[in-house]
Amino acid sequence: MAAGSRPAVTPLLKDELDIVIPTIRNLDFLEMWRPFFQPYHLIIVQDGDPSKTIKVPEGFDYELYNRNDINRILGPKASCISFKDSACRCFGYMVSKKKYVYTIDDDCFVAKDPSGKDINALEQHIKNLLSPSTPFFFNTLYDPYRDGADFVRGYPFSLRDGVPTAVSHGLWLNIPDYDAPTQLVKPLERNTRYVDAVMTIPKGTLFPMCGMNLAFDREMIGPAMYFGLMGDGQPIGRYDDMWAGWCTKVICDHLGLGIKTGLPYIWHSKASNPFVNLKKEYKGIFWQEELIPFFQQVALTKDCTTVQKCYLELSRQVKEKLGKVDDYFNKLADAMVTWIQAWDELNPAKADAAAAALANGASK
Amino acid sequence: MAAGSRPAVTPLLKDELDIVIPTIRNLDFLEMWRPFFQPYHLIIVQDGDPSKTIKVPEGFDYELYNRNDINRILGPKASCISFKDSACRCFGYMVSKKKYVYTIDDDCFVAKDPSGKDINALEQHIKNLLSPSTPFFFNTLYDPYRDGADFVRGYPFSLRDGVPTAVSHGLWLNIPDYDAPTQLVKPLERNTRYVDAVMTIPKGTLFPMCGMNLAFDREMIGPAMYFGLMGDGQPIGRYDDMWAGWCTKVICDHLGLGIKTGLPYIWHSKASNPFVNLKKEYKGIFWQEELIPFFQQVALTKDCTTVQKCYLELSRQVKEKLGKVDDYFNKLADAMVTWIQAWDELNPAKADAAAAALANGASK
Repeated sequence: MAAGSRPAVTPLLKDELDIVIPTIRNLDFLEMWRPFFQPYHLIIVQDGDPSKTIKVPEGFDYELYNRNDINRILGPKASCISFKDSACRCFGYMVSKKKYVYTIDDDCFVAKDPSGKDINALEQHIKNLLSPSTPFFFNTLYDPYRDGADFVRGYPFSLRDGVPTAVSHGLWLNIPDYDAPTQLVKPLERNTRYVDAVMTIPKGTLFPMCGMNLAFDREMIGPAMYFGLMGDGQPIGRYDDMWAGWCTKVICDHLGLGIKTGLPYIWHSKASNPFVNLKKEYKGIFWQEELIPFFQQVALTKDCTTVQKCYLELSRQVKEKLGKVDDYFNKLADAMVTWIQAWDELNPAKADAAAAALANGASK
Repeated sequence: MAAGSRPAVTPLLKDELDIVIPTIRNLDFLEMWRPFFQPYHLIIVQDGDPSKTIKVPEGFDYELYNRNDINRILGPKASCISFKDSACRCFGYMVSKKKYVYTIDDDCFVAKDPSGKDINALEQHIKNLLSPSTPFFFNTLYDPYRDGADFVRGYPFSLRDGVPTAVSHGLWLNIPDYDAPTQLVKPLERNTRYVDAVMTIPKGTLFPMCGMNLAFDREMIGPAMYFGLMGDGQPIGRYDDMWAGWCTKVICDHLGLGIKTGLPYIWHSKASNPFVNLKKEYKGIFWQEELIPFFQQVALTKDCTTVQKCYLELSRQVKEKLGKVDDYFNKLADAMVTWIQAWDELNPAKADAAAAALANGASK
């Protein structure tokens, strides 16, 4: 190679991944992400007033949907998509035509690793998704598939193939993802600890999935990534990603798929207002005490062989077991069904492909 | 305080912790650990030829047991303590009179953190043991009790008290703890990744516990820390800590106790011979494929209210379910019973105290 020249590197999965961004404002934050995001297609889901114009920096390839678009495309089924809440982002998952989705909040910037280098968050997510997960046994040196790591002594050899990874959950430097009570008690706390690890969340263990910096294989798990009914007209907010995470984890455990957490970090720039958050979270703080035991004990039957089937069965159990906690969960269970109907309508071929991919994954 | 003066800092748990070291050689490695270990009492378990003299650097407070001592103290029950294998270290756990034990191999040296500072491994283990564990739900920012961290949004408030921590499992820089096949395939691999994290291993998840750099609350879990029958006269070696880890994890899960892994690191100086290791591990590589499913499904009944009761019930199930894998497991099951008898003989008062402590822990 001639001195000074560099081979043109094609970004990983360039034509197989969409970046989904929910927003109410101009997307100036994309300037900082330009070196990493520009090769990819963006799906912007505009929340709130549809007459407002969202400015997207030049040079990005994108499609943008506002509330009018969502209503037009989904018709009556648009009722399952939240309004005035970033939960609306899941509409972007539904209209994507790609195998992978990365979703990020518009107050998240490029973080630096301990050496001072900008972190290409998307590249790390793709690495996480393209290497297997190990949900059946804990590896003390973390992700055994990373360079310089492996399975340690005592790790059964029959489990070293791992399972396909469906979700990559990234973290946040600076403002941690705390609930309102913790924000109120620790207003000045910042996350400065860079933990150089990726790990699989073990089978049977639930986790709080944050939607700020999240990637997944939508062909493998997309229909479970419903962010629920939040915001306008709903008794709750800020539990959209949690709900999706609990449903997704239970379904991944059932189908033998993996979820990784850890790297990459993004820089979360500003804390949301804890008083506003408390109002949104208030009921969730009580409800989660009943939701976690529900999700911990939920069992899916053997005939739940696709994500869609799992999700519909889950909605049935939500209605049966959580409907008595609050009528909201009856409404949510119905919306879960509507979501699957809308997903299948927009992804007719994909629905079969997903079932086939799962069957392949499961037979490994 | 006058300039230049410093308050005399008493090392944490100085009179409540023993350091247990199994060895066949002079303990020159202690020189490097002097600033951190000298205030503590050492229990040295001399393996192999009892006529050999082990030199201990001056200034350390220690007691030393060789095979003759073990035979004299335990009589016929000495059969449960392995010979010519570092599994003999568990004799030290039994004769300790302290609440906590830290055990370390004599080829482990002081590691440096990324800033170049010497890591006080023992201090970090004590921090791990003195703060609660969170086995029931995963916290994505790792140990929520560390400075600068907390429980993230979506973590149920009812679970934020955590549970008592029984075990702190530390890691190793330089030579990773690989099995013989991995050593053979990757002779040059070194662990250079310093992961700045401590985490709880979730309930229901097994892990490969390494005895190289390990601390535990012996009043809480000591009787489960039996390192099995290994080495001289046995068909297997190098599974002593694994066996203890699987038994301990199952019992901690049953009793509502926590196990943490991650920090601190030690510097593991030299890889053991992979050919020798392969010979020792050979049967274990097959057996672990049956042991893991056994430990994954094992259930302890409600009347198993103390570690001793749990361990005896486990030995019964080992005989019943693993005896058919190999006759070795019948012998091991018997040794597990002998171990508990010997433990209770040497720790008559502690046995009751442990039951009381557990009852307190469980009622929180």
